Amino acid sequence: MEERYSKAETLALRRKHIGPSCKVFFAKDPLKIVRAQGQYMFDEKGEKYLDCINNVAHVGHSHPYVIKAATKQMELLNTNSRFLHDNLVQYAQRLTATLPEKLSVCYFVNSGSEANDLALRLARQYRGYQDVITLENAYHGHVTSLIDISPYKFNQLGKDCKKEYVHVAPSPDIYRGKYREDHPDPASAYAEEVKKIIEETQKNGRKIAAFIAESMQSCGGQVIPPVGYFQKVAEYVRAAGGVFIADEVQVGFGRVGKHFWAFQLQGEDFVPDIVTMGKPIGNGHPMSCVVTTREIAESFGASGLEYFNTFGGNPVSCAIGLAVLDVIEKEDLQGNATRVGNYLLELLAEQKKKHPLVGDIRGVGLFVGVDLVKDQQKRTPATAEALHLIYKLKERQILLSADGPYRNILKFKPPMCFTMEDAKHAVETIDVLLTDS
Amino acid sequence: MEERYSKAETLALRRKHIGPSCKVFFAKDPLKIVRAQGQYMFDEKGEKYLDCINNVAHVGHSHPYVIKAATKQMELLNTNSRFLHDNLVQYAQRLTATLPEKLSVCYFVNSGSEANDLALRLARQYRGYQDVITLENAYHGHVTSLIDISPYKFNQLGKDCKKEYVHVAPSPDIYRGKYREDHPDPASAYAEEVKKIIEETQKNGRKIAAFIAESMQSCGGQVIPPVGYFQKVAEYVRAAGGVFIADEVQVGFGRVGKHFWAFQLQGEDFVPDIVTMGKPIGNGHPMSCVVTTREIAESFGASGLEYFNTFGGNPVSCAIGLAVLDVIEKEDLQGNATRVGNYLLELLAEQKKKHPLVGDIRGVGLFVGVDLVKDQQKRTPATAEALHLIYKLKERQILLSADGPYRNILKFKPPMCFTMEDAKHAVETIDVLLTDS
Repeated sequence: MEERYSKAETLALRRKHIGPSCKVFFAKDPLKIVRAQGQYMFDEKGEKYLDCINNVAHVGHSHPYVIKAATKQMELLNTNSRFLHDNLVQYAQRLTATLPEKLSVCYFVNSGSEANDLALRLARQYRGYQDVITLENAYHGHVTSLIDISPYKFNQLGKDCKKEYVHVAPSPDIYRGKYREDHPDPASAYAEEVKKIIEETQKNGRKIAAFIAESMQSCGGQVIPPVGYFQKVAEYVRAAGGVFIADEVQVGFGRVGKHFWAFQLQGEDFVPDIVTMGKPIGNGHPMSCVVTTREIAESFGASGLEYFNTFGGNPVSCAIGLAVLDVIEKEDLQGNATRVGNYLLELLAEQKKKHPLVGDIRGVGLFVGVDLVKDQQKRTPATAEALHLIYKLKERQILLSADGPYRNILKFKPPMCFTMEDAKHAVETIDVLLTDS
Repeated sequence: MEERYSKAETLALRRKHIGPSCKVFFAKDPLKIVRAQGQYMFDEKGEKYLDCINNVAHVGHSHPYVIKAATKQMELLNTNSRFLHDNLVQYAQRLTATLPEKLSVCYFVNSGSEANDLALRLARQYRGYQDVITLENAYHGHVTSLIDISPYKFNQLGKDCKKEYVHVAPSPDIYRGKYREDHPDPASAYAEEVKKIIEETQKNGRKIAAFIAESMQSCGGQVIPPVGYFQKVAEYVRAAGGVFIADEVQVGFGRVGKHFWAFQLQGEDFVPDIVTMGKPIGNGHPMSCVVTTREIAESFGASGLEYFNTFGGNPVSCAIGLAVLDVIEKEDLQGNATRVGNYLLELLAEQKKKHPLVGDIRGVGLFVGVDLVKDQQKRTPATAEALHLIYKLKERQILLSADGPYRNILKFKPPMCFTMEDAKHAVETIDVLLTDS
């Protein structure tokens, strides 16, 4: 018996005991999910849904290898990192081996929000500067310090909600942004905008602690920055004394296929000063990490303030983290992301030719966005149409979501075991629905 | 084979890959722990240590019932709370049933820090006020917003590190504080100090969003506030439009024995507006919770801003939370905390008579502090002596720590399965060491 309450009872108890700010998917008719395996979720009636959205279940829902590692370690020991433990250092070693050499020092924490908050603390301690440059539509987490640097959130709170130490640069979106695919050098043009902000800020006597950006914007609308943008931004930011924080919480761990980290799409000559990780890192287990350079870590240590995180880096989390790295490798999930991602992009490109609602297809590996528009020329966001499509797909047992500032961008970020057949089935269903509508 | 690296290798890898701000216990000769069971930890050589400090392993290290619940749920499903799930609502129901009726709405998060940060967000949204009153020596977490309200941390950063919206009230410590055990009414006297701060703040045109305090101060020095203090503080704070946040991250879940929550020691007439939970909640699994009133939750919801926490309230965390509640009940751990705690206090009281180094014994249930002093009259903190004793105890395979602003207070907060024999053994060993020294 997998169900304790009827769906109506679950919903009623949820309304009574869970904060109303905590929303459910498909609010008009929420899903109750009782089990999941690989890229499939099952509701209380046993109905099977194809999961195109849960990037957290990175190596697949309920992966037996990961569960075994967790159970084995739970039976031995789960305690804090004030005791020496092999899992912590082995995991730190394995994780840093995936990164450029300079990024060698880890801080293990519990969530992407804790990671990004700590990244800001590291950046601010580094030279004592305070200001942060963030991108339009960015979301970096739910704690106070991150709502402050997340226009995706603070813009909803009305005017004057931007703090004076926060500076918002244009999103390097070549489909909807200020400089588009027809611009001769959008990377430089967008980087120049950051430079302007730095100069303006300095004129006002303020100092930049950090530039922070997701290596690809997810909530912001599946935006892939043009190659070379990060290098130029990093140059300007460092010249001003700041550091470059690459937020890989959504997009790291091989999702882009040919690289382990999405920032590596910019080229080998780009190395961030701080990288933050989260969601997929533990296949659903609450854990995350900040990796930085020895220099920045030493400067943080120099304050004398201890950094202690009760659960961060505990032996169970590290065992799970190690198991996730093993599975990515053993099952060649990066290769799969490339193969299936390319196929998905091809299939979607055909849809673009066929349906005027499809304005843009963009993506790399298993991180793909479909920008729906009411008008191909004006690129008017097709918000209502996207929502309608999402509900129709749910009826056909395919889970997809719409995001971006206008909620018009279909967001593919499935578990990494997603197959060619899954891609075909999803796109064929979209085709049918777009043809019918 | 439980060990992958030699202790020296583990230590070297740790120095290379873990931030230097992350400290180890017994820095001069750190412990490598490879397994633990109940109230015992075992090092790489198989040596057994009595654990008097790990309050996170609340129902005992590696508890089989908790592990079974975790494994069973991991095999079925671990996903986010945007899908309906019975574990979430069942756990919310069970948890709120331990609290006064008014406290009925939960937000599940991943750590005490996330919980306290969200509590501040709730408090600030409630009436739009910003200022916070916190206690001397308080520690509420490691994210930016909490370092700001934690004198235990920000005082170490030098002068001018207190933000203008933070106001520090005296710790209601009747042994070392401003009003002591000889004062006729320390509860009122300490509450009056908070009232003065509120009046001062209002004169300066500022508004109080919240008063926050641990129900008993832990890092602050195992301080138990005099009965009636919270009621009076709450009255003054609410009159000013603020809310009362009880931080139960360290001290909740039955540790005090006769009550489930430490704030209940103040009497049935006291109900906080927000309660935050953490550490023991999942017996080491990264999870935590904020519980508040319907009114405050609605006001938070009214901003329209969604609150989404990727890992918070997932089915595995909730299954673990439920299992911990089961074990507390089935094994009568509250009863055990009272019985063993009282016995421990008796044994320590004898030590106080015998050794002039023991200045004060205070505690309730399995939360006990031993204040070491160089001089009984002046109550001069015996910091070096405390550190020496902790190292000597470690040699005798007893894990204890020293905390408080002067690091002179021995802090007992063992797993709740701690026995009479454990208490006797720990105190007898302390006796021998104090007699020898």
